[in-house]
Amino acid sequence: MAEKNASKFPAVQGGGSLIIAWQVKGKKVLVVGGGEVAAGRILHLLNADALVTVVSPTSGLCPEVAFRVAQNQVTHIARTFQPSDLDDTTMVLAAVDDPAVSTLIYNLAHSRNIPANIADVPPECDFYFGSVHRDGPLQIMVSTNGKGPRVASTIRKFIASKLPQNAGQAIEAVGALRVKLREIAPRPEEGPKRMAWMTKVSDAYSWEEMCGLTEEDMGNLLKWYASGKVPSLDVLKSMRNNGDVSKLDVFDGSFGFSVGA
Amino acid sequence: MAEKNASKFPAVQGGGSLIIAWQVKGKKVLVVGGGEVAAGRILHLLNADALVTVVSPTSGLCPEVAFRVAQNQVTHIARTFQPSDLDDTTMVLAAVDDPAVSTLIYNLAHSRNIPANIADVPPECDFYFGSVHRDGPLQIMVSTNGKGPRVASTIRKFIASKLPQNAGQAIEAVGALRVKLREIAPRPEEGPKRMAWMTKVSDAYSWEEMCGLTEEDMGNLLKWYASGKVPSLDVLKSMRNNGDVSKLDVFDGSFGFSVGA
Repeated sequence: MAEKNASKFPAVQGGGSLIIAWQVKGKKVLVVGGGEVAAGRILHLLNADALVTVVSPTSGLCPEVAFRVAQNQVTHIARTFQPSDLDDTTMVLAAVDDPAVSTLIYNLAHSRNIPANIADVPPECDFYFGSVHRDGPLQIMVSTNGKGPRVASTIRKFIASKLPQNAGQAIEAVGALRVKLREIAPRPEEGPKRMAWMTKVSDAYSWEEMCGLTEEDMGNLLKWYASGKVPSLDVLKSMRNNGDVSKLDVFDGSFGFSVGA
Repeated sequence: MAEKNASKFPAVQGGGSLIIAWQVKGKKVLVVGGGEVAAGRILHLLNADALVTVVSPTSGLCPEVAFRVAQNQVTHIARTFQPSDLDDTTMVLAAVDDPAVSTLIYNLAHSRNIPANIADVPPECDFYFGSVHRDGPLQIMVSTNGKGPRVASTIRKFIASKLPQNAGQAIEAVGALRVKLREIAPRPEEGPKRMAWMTKVSDAYSWEEMCGLTEEDMGNLLKWYASGKVPSLDVLKSMRNNGDVSKLDVFDGSFGFSVGA
């Protein structure tokens, strides 16, 4: 494309989806149907802290959904769908075998601006699901944009096998450090300095190193923030038990974040 | 947890997001602001075929957004935000430096059930973005649920480096095969047979093998569908130029899909 050659900006590559991390914590999400497909949707929703309401005759519940109902993990309305079920709903997922009911749900949701996913009916989906790897705060979603759901699952497992085992923990550690940094340097106008320093930290240590940092190490690391510098791991470790930090070398930001090294 | 031990079903692991592939093709999405953050959002949206409207004074456009405007890739409204900008909008993304304007946009969107993302204001986000790897139909999104955006980007690059180079092509090939299969076996009641056969195909060939299949190979592969069987790659290749397929061994589904082998 001429446009691509003429520009230093990324070329548009259409045909994809807008992949987003939807926040459903504490929000009512309606699931119509109680079969295997519904079970998968419900687990996704519960993992995102949604308040799930399942509408399905009890006879239509598969063992997994019946288990979630019995455990009070979801609210169960034991009958078929009624339009009022959409009241106060932030999102609706339907997985029923009746195309007429599916289309009714979609049309009602659409008229109310409620995002909907009608399983197996792509034109009646405001969004699709993919295959998700989860490790604590880390979520990795693989979508093939409908070309090969099974391949998506295969790729997700492939990725999981390649990730460092403690990726989730390392991210928790980075997150905890960011929270503590905001505590010691809360002023909004320090935002850029905080961000630059966190970037330096991310670049200074490998996954494994990040995971190995103790609470004490985190506290010691924060002592470097004022200077805008980040110590090497050796220096940081030497600070344990109140070691003397004067005249020690510090990390200058010149080498990369060695993921999984 | 007692629940975890007592059940054969996956334990709920809260604290995540609902990661979804939003379909914005042909839908109007409003972006308020024209800076670097807006530029990133706009590229995500254009890659998903959204109809993007950017509201920002011309003086507020960064070079990338100005380029998208000049190329007519987006509709530009050269002024500050007005409530009527939300009319007919399916989603709104704001990336402006004025907290009062941000909150106004969020409240207006919320009252109309329009999903909103106000950059840097997590409580005013119905959804977050992550770091996305794109290769044709394949999209892989990495989210750290806000713990470490820079780490998300690092992980995304790490994953990209581990994937087979032609992953996108392989998925296109699988997608094309599925479409052709629907053409030769269109009846809805054949759905389970189609799905079972596609699964067998996915299991029979590696990425590299899948990528190497020609149009002729695809046609020959489809000849096996009626039998429910899938030939080995050698058999499939021997069918080129109208080779005789009788008495050749077929794949029995007993070995795995060797991703990236």
